[in-house]
Amino acid sequence: MIALGIDPGTAICGYGLVEAQGSRLKPIIYGVIETPPDMEAAMRLRKVHQEIDGLIKQYQPDIMGVEMLFMNKNVRTVMAVGQARGVILLAAAQNELSIDEFTPLQVKQAVTGYGKATKEQVIYMTQRLLSLPQKPHPDDAADALAIAIATIHCGSINRMRVTNDRLC
Amino acid sequence: MIALGIDPGTAICGYGLVEAQGSRLKPIIYGVIETPPDMEAAMRLRKVHQEIDGLIKQYQPDIMGVEMLFMNKNVRTVMAVGQARGVILLAAAQNELSIDEFTPLQVKQAVTGYGKATKEQVIYMTQRLLSLPQKPHPDDAADALAIAIATIHCGSINRMRVTNDRLC
Repeated sequence: MIALGIDPGTAICGYGLVEAQGSRLKPIIYGVIETPPDMEAAMRLRKVHQEIDGLIKQYQPDIMGVEMLFMNKNVRTVMAVGQARGVILLAAAQNELSIDEFTPLQVKQAVTGYGKATKEQVIYMTQRLLSLPQKPHPDDAADALAIAIATIHCGSINRMRVTNDRLC
Repeated sequence: MIALGIDPGTAICGYGLVEAQGSRLKPIIYGVIETPPDMEAAMRLRKVHQEIDGLIKQYQPDIMGVEMLFMNKNVRTVMAVGQARGVILLAAAQNELSIDEFTPLQVKQAVTGYGKATKEQVIYMTQRLLSLPQKPHPDDAADALAIAIATIHCGSINRMRVTNDRLC
């Protein structure tokens, strides 16, 4: 099972592909899609869409995990993230890829076992779980890998429970 | 010159195509794209994207006008509108269509000459300017027609001034 985790954004959008091999987790690729601030909003969205579409087509993930909205962000930020989420969800729908959404708390819970873990704890556990030689960076890529791990863990829990109800 | 006005939304997205023939304005087509609430968010976005893309390809507008964010809406609404805007702006970029953005105040100003006009005044003037036999409806389609008119009017002002500065 391959999960594509996405930390949505227009200026910088993190992605991380993780494969579950039994109980082991193997990182496939991770990084960020960056778009220059002087590029028109629509062109930036086109770039994000193209690159996510390319990742899906190349690596054929079984599921996409996307972080849900931080409720405390300002309206302008929410609109920008919303626009990026729109083209990311579209890329998934166009490739018939299922989507799971997670709150930051759910991601922390899935990766560290503790919903109030610090950013450093999440990055540390992400590195450990994926046996990475160094801390994943930048932060948006690390977040995306954590989301991919959460997507796989929640999927496992679901399969074990043989139900549609979600623990995560 | 043909302008495509869009009032973005996922549940209901208004569109209106207006052609400027000299000083006359001619409505080409207007309506709404509706998606059912029980459809997955990504599939709803795909439908909005497909239909906007289809309108652009069929009617070959010269410009798209989109309403900007209402700053007083709640975060959940802003996120939903943002996602819809994302796929709409993407459809424009994929078809190499220029985009103009307008605040509600600018649309009212362009259609009625008064930035604090009521919704009824805007609909009345939209009907008059487009010589429609009856009031355009539903509201989202009427809003989209008003945005298309604003897009044409602001374009005219720009051309008259032969400058990139915007009055609208």
